[in-house]
Amino acid sequence: MTALNERASSPVTDEEIFAAHEGGKLGIAVTKPLADPRSLSIAYTPGVAKVSRAIAEDNALAARYTWASRLVAVVSDGTAVLGLGDIGAAASLPVMEGKAALFKTFGGLDSIPLVLDTTDVDEIVETLVRLRPSFGAVNLEDVSAPRCFELEARLIEALDCPVMHDDQHGTAIVLLAALRGANTVLGKDIAGQRIVIAGAGAAGVACAKILIAAGAGEVTMLDSRGIIHSGRDNLNPVKAELAEVTNASGLRGGQAEALRGANVFVGLSAGTVPEELVATMAGDAIVFALSNPDPEIHPEVAARHAAIVATGRSDFPNQINNVLAFPGIFRGALDAGARRITESMKLAAADAIAAVAADDLAADRIVPSALDPRVAPEVAAAVARAALADGVA
Amino acid sequence: MTALNERASSPVTDEEIFAAHEGGKLGIAVTKPLADPRSLSIAYTPGVAKVSRAIAEDNALAARYTWASRLVAVVSDGTAVLGLGDIGAAASLPVMEGKAALFKTFGGLDSIPLVLDTTDVDEIVETLVRLRPSFGAVNLEDVSAPRCFELEARLIEALDCPVMHDDQHGTAIVLLAALRGANTVLGKDIAGQRIVIAGAGAAGVACAKILIAAGAGEVTMLDSRGIIHSGRDNLNPVKAELAEVTNASGLRGGQAEALRGANVFVGLSAGTVPEELVATMAGDAIVFALSNPDPEIHPEVAARHAAIVATGRSDFPNQINNVLAFPGIFRGALDAGARRITESMKLAAADAIAAVAADDLAADRIVPSALDPRVAPEVAAAVARAALADGVA
Repeated sequence: MTALNERASSPVTDEEIFAAHEGGKLGIAVTKPLADPRSLSIAYTPGVAKVSRAIAEDNALAARYTWASRLVAVVSDGTAVLGLGDIGAAASLPVMEGKAALFKTFGGLDSIPLVLDTTDVDEIVETLVRLRPSFGAVNLEDVSAPRCFELEARLIEALDCPVMHDDQHGTAIVLLAALRGANTVLGKDIAGQRIVIAGAGAAGVACAKILIAAGAGEVTMLDSRGIIHSGRDNLNPVKAELAEVTNASGLRGGQAEALRGANVFVGLSAGTVPEELVATMAGDAIVFALSNPDPEIHPEVAARHAAIVATGRSDFPNQINNVLAFPGIFRGALDAGARRITESMKLAAADAIAAVAADDLAADRIVPSALDPRVAPEVAAAVARAALADGVA
Repeated sequence: MTALNERASSPVTDEEIFAAHEGGKLGIAVTKPLADPRSLSIAYTPGVAKVSRAIAEDNALAARYTWASRLVAVVSDGTAVLGLGDIGAAASLPVMEGKAALFKTFGGLDSIPLVLDTTDVDEIVETLVRLRPSFGAVNLEDVSAPRCFELEARLIEALDCPVMHDDQHGTAIVLLAALRGANTVLGKDIAGQRIVIAGAGAAGVACAKILIAAGAGEVTMLDSRGIIHSGRDNLNPVKAELAEVTNASGLRGGQAEALRGANVFVGLSAGTVPEELVATMAGDAIVFALSNPDPEIHPEVAARHAAIVATGRSDFPNQINNVLAFPGIFRGALDAGARRITESMKLAAADAIAAVAADDLAADRIVPSALDPRVAPEVAAAVARAALADGVA
């Protein structure tokens, strides 16, 4: 097992990055070698005809005799790629290949990047419906908000298989696991906490929802115009819905008003947070400065005022990274034969991540390492159990 | 190297076939392992962002830094699968997985099966146009005639990458190579031969075209209603076009009239040919009974009257199998960076296959073994040269 919080030994150079991407990062493996005439006549004509005929007579057999039922389509239209924004499908592909490599490495799952030269929600749904027999699940990735909310909902409706927009739910699940870890270290309870989320994009909205579902005392959402409240007249439908379930205190204003007296800060906005505002938070404050590559506040600066600090980066302690969630979630959903990914499957995933961290918990170890090989199997098992309990498998 | 015409040692059982298909025949390989934090920060965040940004600034870099430019999409709608007919997309998938396994094994090319739950030509074209950044070439497979002709033409028009319907051109290329081998053995010239093709589906039409392009003396086409000639009023547009360039002798009638005095018979119809009709062919007749799994006439029966006999089966000599062509054709086209697959690239492929067979030519060795590892590299090199000569690379 890789040591927790292991660091890269020297700075990574651009040359090294580009050299490692020559030819891409994925290949196809033939799992049943075609070494001789016998194996050829089994895997191809004439043998394969028997398998095709059997599936034609009973389509359910495709799940057993093809790779599709356990294949994750990693789908993007390239509109919200990392912190780069709308760079298009072709430019998003290295990220999707990386995602597929993570699915294989941590979840033991095969996946293929499908990047789309359209940003039209109807067209993306239509395309995946047509390709439905080719895959067994959809990991939606790097699709811009608020389109991502409609697209995910439409795909869940249209496809009888697990669909998850990882930028939303992967982030939310790991965030909840990290908060559980931090609260255990500090002896706090989520029910008594007011949590400020800066950023009401894909990740921010999903984080608010999972924190509320997990029993958070109060959530205060910030977008670029300040605190989201029902008195604002510039809210899109997603934010209007959030305004109904957040900000019970009726706060108005911006970051300063939101942070004063808050227990937890969750940064998902690619903005910055001045040190003096962190100083106004409640005692034993928790700061999750998750913007990549530049956290909203340097973790060492935040630590002057906060009891626990986490970032999205691998070179600081407490890395909140989606890779802790998505390989195990899809693996568990597919292992269970789940038709969809429910809220309780997501909560179960967060609990499982937190449980792995609990073995060795400390203020600088509130989540497991992104490379901890124990995580994905534990998440998968918990998610599969939740799927069965939910009756979606 | 596997011995030519090696035979399976014992009959393949259904149990063996289904067992070999459990879980499918393909997997994803991670070509750049994610073993430690350093490799993770190169292949995923934050490193991958540099590659994505570079591609966003110059889309041509996607060819270098992703797998897509060398990835073949193996595309089917499941309407003409092997000899099974219209069995649907899901049931076609084992065949497409087998094809992908052959691409990898013989051509060293990665490919992904994309099976489509629509048979509408417009929709298939639209789907692949949207997915264009995800792949580098399209192998169209098991699409029924005459839709396959329109679909292939539309895709070639819509996509700036190699597109080939293998059931048409792969078959035609290997057939031409086999005929070259047979003619060398017999000391014959294609220019003096009348060739009967039974079956005017995807393979039959493409075979007629390549034989004419290669200088065949005369081609006589048969469909289920008999000899195709311009006097018939029941011809679809593809057959009407064929009627103009075949049957210079003006033959009328059926199989008996077509075969009498013919030099070569090519069976692609899943029908049968009575021994007494083969007996009416010209001296030194060549019989290619290519229907699978049941040849139009048993090769030992045909051999009573024909000088050279070939089938599509691996358990008789002279197996005419597309695997001799498609891995090398796509490999050569992609190696050259070809934007399309031209007629001269196809002819070059046939010549290259024939050249490998020439080393060890005999009446029962007119084509190389389907497992001969020399074939794909030779075909690839010839196809790449032809692409450069044609100015499509």
